[in-house]
Amino acid sequence: MITSQSDRDRLIVGIDAGGTSSRATLLTREGECLGYGKSGSGNPTSAGEQLAGDNVVDAVSQALRAAGRDAGDVGLIVAAAAGHGASGEEHWLLQALQRAGFVSELVFESDLLALYFSGTAEPDGYAIVSGTGASVIRAQAGRLVGTVDGLGWLLGDRGSGFWLGHRAALAAVEDLDGRGEPTALTSAVLEALDIEPAPSLGYGRPVLLEALIRQIYRGRPVELARLAPLVFTASDDPIARGILIEAGELLAHSFAAAYQGTGPLVVGGSVLAQPGPLAEVFADRVAALDAGVRVIPSADGVLGSAVLALRHAGVEVDAPGHARLAASVAAARAR
Amino acid sequence: MITSQSDRDRLIVGIDAGGTSSRATLLTREGECLGYGKSGSGNPTSAGEQLAGDNVVDAVSQALRAAGRDAGDVGLIVAAAAGHGASGEEHWLLQALQRAGFVSELVFESDLLALYFSGTAEPDGYAIVSGTGASVIRAQAGRLVGTVDGLGWLLGDRGSGFWLGHRAALAAVEDLDGRGEPTALTSAVLEALDIEPAPSLGYGRPVLLEALIRQIYRGRPVELARLAPLVFTASDDPIARGILIEAGELLAHSFAAAYQGTGPLVVGGSVLAQPGPLAEVFADRVAALDAGVRVIPSADGVLGSAVLALRHAGVEVDAPGHARLAASVAAARAR
Repeated sequence: MITSQSDRDRLIVGIDAGGTSSRATLLTREGECLGYGKSGSGNPTSAGEQLAGDNVVDAVSQALRAAGRDAGDVGLIVAAAAGHGASGEEHWLLQALQRAGFVSELVFESDLLALYFSGTAEPDGYAIVSGTGASVIRAQAGRLVGTVDGLGWLLGDRGSGFWLGHRAALAAVEDLDGRGEPTALTSAVLEALDIEPAPSLGYGRPVLLEALIRQIYRGRPVELARLAPLVFTASDDPIARGILIEAGELLAHSFAAAYQGTGPLVVGGSVLAQPGPLAEVFADRVAALDAGVRVIPSADGVLGSAVLALRHAGVEVDAPGHARLAASVAAARAR
Repeated sequence: MITSQSDRDRLIVGIDAGGTSSRATLLTREGECLGYGKSGSGNPTSAGEQLAGDNVVDAVSQALRAAGRDAGDVGLIVAAAAGHGASGEEHWLLQALQRAGFVSELVFESDLLALYFSGTAEPDGYAIVSGTGASVIRAQAGRLVGTVDGLGWLLGDRGSGFWLGHRAALAAVEDLDGRGEPTALTSAVLEALDIEPAPSLGYGRPVLLEALIRQIYRGRPVELARLAPLVFTASDDPIARGILIEAGELLAHSFAAAYQGTGPLVVGGSVLAQPGPLAEVFADRVAALDAGVRVIPSADGVLGSAVLALRHAGVEVDAPGHARLAASVAAARAR
């Protein structure tokens, strides 16, 4: 690839725009990380377009300041964002960047592909993430070529934090109305939702059950994900244990649906990071599918968004380059 | 029961306050229906408290006008309303009635108990309704003593219109992403949601699937109930047929969970009124549980709310009385 000297000098920015925080790395074409920045939510759906855009720009500006550079030094910005890929939805970030003086090209990438490249330099492989939602992606030649699940709480997200919390709520409801088994989840769910014990019957149903139903419908459905930790805590309870095992099986099933026999599996999200029956069943099922699958845990998509940024700049990142970049990004994050 | 002459002369109002409409009957203690009125939604949750209250008062006022009576002639008002039974939630209707000059006692009753008494005079028995939601109730000595399901779309309503529509959406999603079987439901769902065919692939998923997912999340979850008729229309399709059969089984299962061996089963709601595999499987399962269960279809809760109103006034409604009242209410509705 022939580039002019000025092109070569211009820096690259990688962005990991997540629902909890936005993180940015400032990179050279040689794969050195010059600066790192972190700000609030970079998800335009949950945070709003204005705030998400401002937060991402804030993270990028911090990375520039850490390196004593400014917007004019940046030639390319690659942003990994949730649910991205549809065209015509970049304006929220493009406008915020332009207001802040950036004139660089902006490319969007999948947040799951960023997670994948946080764990490996292999161009072919898989990533699974189970946080509030759950998805599996397949990468081929460094590009996202297949997605399984990631359908959201109403249509899928099987084995996700929402799924676990929803099951905990259902177990409590079935315990209280006498159709299901008694479970330690019931008192845990009632306590988590601030429902006081009340033994009397009302309207053909326990008052406690009516209160639980009302409280659940008062919130947004996706908020049931905050009940997920109760299932892990109650893992000695047979009902809770059964839910954890089923979640592990569902996640392995989604991976199996994507699997075509090559490459490592990068694993992210809070659900699979938690030790216990869920992670054990998942690992067993993956090994049963193919004992040769290398499983690599990954905490976030920061390193992978840097890899994607370099790839878009025409810089190949091989295994030694990935290791050097990982060390350089880690050092910048620690500064 | 000893009552004063003035008590005896005062009339009774029965109200069936539903999400689609509010209906009122004006009754004598002898079980004659003097007038009938109908207005808009009487559901304070969906229509808002002000509008629901005004609509119910409008229906009652029409019933009074039809009989040449006024608010002062009414001694007791019994309102059957969805999801009722919790105390302290009557104010929306009480205030609307007081503004319109009513000083009568107001009693709330279950809409499902009203549906039950639309079908029978038996004090002990069961009602099942499957419309947007699904519930079974058990009546004993004329009172609601047990409820199965009725937990809403997020926690239950198994075999309901929502359940059918949700399953239709899931079948379309699984067909489009290749995990499920091809089904006639896919084109029906896409057409119902105004999604244009688009063959190309985007972001590791068919564009059509992305469009479908977006469209579903754009609406409120409960709006999936409007896809339910597609499942009935496609009943020759194996996937659709399987959904209908499972719904029939789930509804029969809810009935079985409530069943304690006595009394008829009153059946209401649009789902079970539709002929085909669902209703057939439901009837088969109910007969298998107990061949002696008398199944009585019922279109609405108008007659039953009149029965409940008379019962609250201390008037017993036996089988001949129920038949006379039914004829009198039908005549008032036809006027």
